[in-house]
Amino acid sequence: MDVSIIGSGNVAWHLAPALDNLGYVVKEVYSRNPRHAAALTDRLYQAEVKASLDFSTSKSRLFIIAVSDEAIQSIVSEIILPDDSLLVHTSGSQPLHVLQFAAPHGMGVFYPLQTFSKSKKIDFKTIPIFLECSDDATKDQLKEVAKALSKSVYHITAEERKALHVAAVFASNFSNHMLKLSKDIMQENSLDFNLLKPLILETIQKSLSLGPEASQTGPAVRGDLEILDQEAYFLHENEKVAEIYRLISQHILDTYTPD
Amino acid sequence: MDVSIIGSGNVAWHLAPALDNLGYVVKEVYSRNPRHAAALTDRLYQAEVKASLDFSTSKSRLFIIAVSDEAIQSIVSEIILPDDSLLVHTSGSQPLHVLQFAAPHGMGVFYPLQTFSKSKKIDFKTIPIFLECSDDATKDQLKEVAKALSKSVYHITAEERKALHVAAVFASNFSNHMLKLSKDIMQENSLDFNLLKPLILETIQKSLSLGPEASQTGPAVRGDLEILDQEAYFLHENEKVAEIYRLISQHILDTYTPD
Repeated sequence: MDVSIIGSGNVAWHLAPALDNLGYVVKEVYSRNPRHAAALTDRLYQAEVKASLDFSTSKSRLFIIAVSDEAIQSIVSEIILPDDSLLVHTSGSQPLHVLQFAAPHGMGVFYPLQTFSKSKKIDFKTIPIFLECSDDATKDQLKEVAKALSKSVYHITAEERKALHVAAVFASNFSNHMLKLSKDIMQENSLDFNLLKPLILETIQKSLSLGPEASQTGPAVRGDLEILDQEAYFLHENEKVAEIYRLISQHILDTYTPD
Repeated sequence: MDVSIIGSGNVAWHLAPALDNLGYVVKEVYSRNPRHAAALTDRLYQAEVKASLDFSTSKSRLFIIAVSDEAIQSIVSEIILPDDSLLVHTSGSQPLHVLQFAAPHGMGVFYPLQTFSKSKKIDFKTIPIFLECSDDATKDQLKEVAKALSKSVYHITAEERKALHVAAVFASNFSNHMLKLSKDIMQENSLDFNLLKPLILETIQKSLSLGPEASQTGPAVRGDLEILDQEAYFLHENEKVAEIYRLISQHILDTYTPD
């Protein structure tokens, strides 16, 4: 099954070569910026840069929209697909039916749960792929592609995908923002953020092996109100950060302190 | 210099054998629970269980209080030290002067910035140790001990230690709590938390190598208000978690969106 990729961002950058290497030949790459599309085709065996979204004469049967969430709708409103083609997007948060307007034969969500950067190699085999499909025939076809890419493939409902995405926001975006706030505090006090690296790595490794409950430490889980007060006061010149400190500390207190 | 350890918790568990192996012989271990003290002496070459806090006839010159923050004051109020002895505690958040009542010859804070568990081996060489000392002679002596243990040793002020501890709370306790909230959302929706492990590891590794700003992704940093609304609504049955979602998302928006 030949494939066309719409998009040249971080997901497309890794997904297209991974498909190519498995024999799902990527024939066309479209991007709003043709130079970005060309950079991606350079990573592929046979792909050409596609100048428009008119794929009516394309030989591909799988069309993958791997663009930012905001851009999906305008792509769908312009794209022209050949008959019998499958259209998927790779977003964790956009609904399946956003693809409907393109009138594909079958449609799906093909959501690889990982954070991608162009500069960093990644092994697709280890990335869970979550599928949501319009019908059983599409389900079978997308499952085959996903199983070739990854050793963990799951069919989920729209509701489960919502939960998964919110959980991923906490686990990835919010934990990363805690590191950002930590780095800011260090820098404001002329301390090197790198000093915290061994602690951060050990905490996360422990959390993933023993569970976050077993690896929780610090003044909130100990119920040490004196230190909590002192530290909230330490942050008082930055009211927003102090508010985050109080809210999360209170939630840790509530989570671990029996009523 | 012989050493006595007061405490048998996670810090003492790793610190005492590390000192022993470097020739700072641990001679005595005191713990409120003598069986815990005995378990620690089993890990040491020459140490004996000490039944009381009267060390007036002890041959040790360095006394390390490695107990929970709440317990330090009552230890200090009871302990009797020999002349010329140094007394330190290992807390990140307790002031130096909390040791004053024991009237040591010199006193210090000896703060290893790491999370310790009895079940997990740890290489002390990689753990930053932060020192705060009552005087220069103590400073020289504690620095020598710390440098034998670790390749990164720093003298910091009381104010810097406060900043360091608050930053560590964000980096470790709060990022870990984000994983806890994530796990709860997954479980409430019958999804396996393990599915998020590759994402979490990649996020943290990227954050530590490129910096948290470069590795921030998700709806808030993209300014995607529609998804933010949807996800806050998704959490509406748990108002406290929804509030955390909104507050951190707003802060990410404010941090990354130019005015």
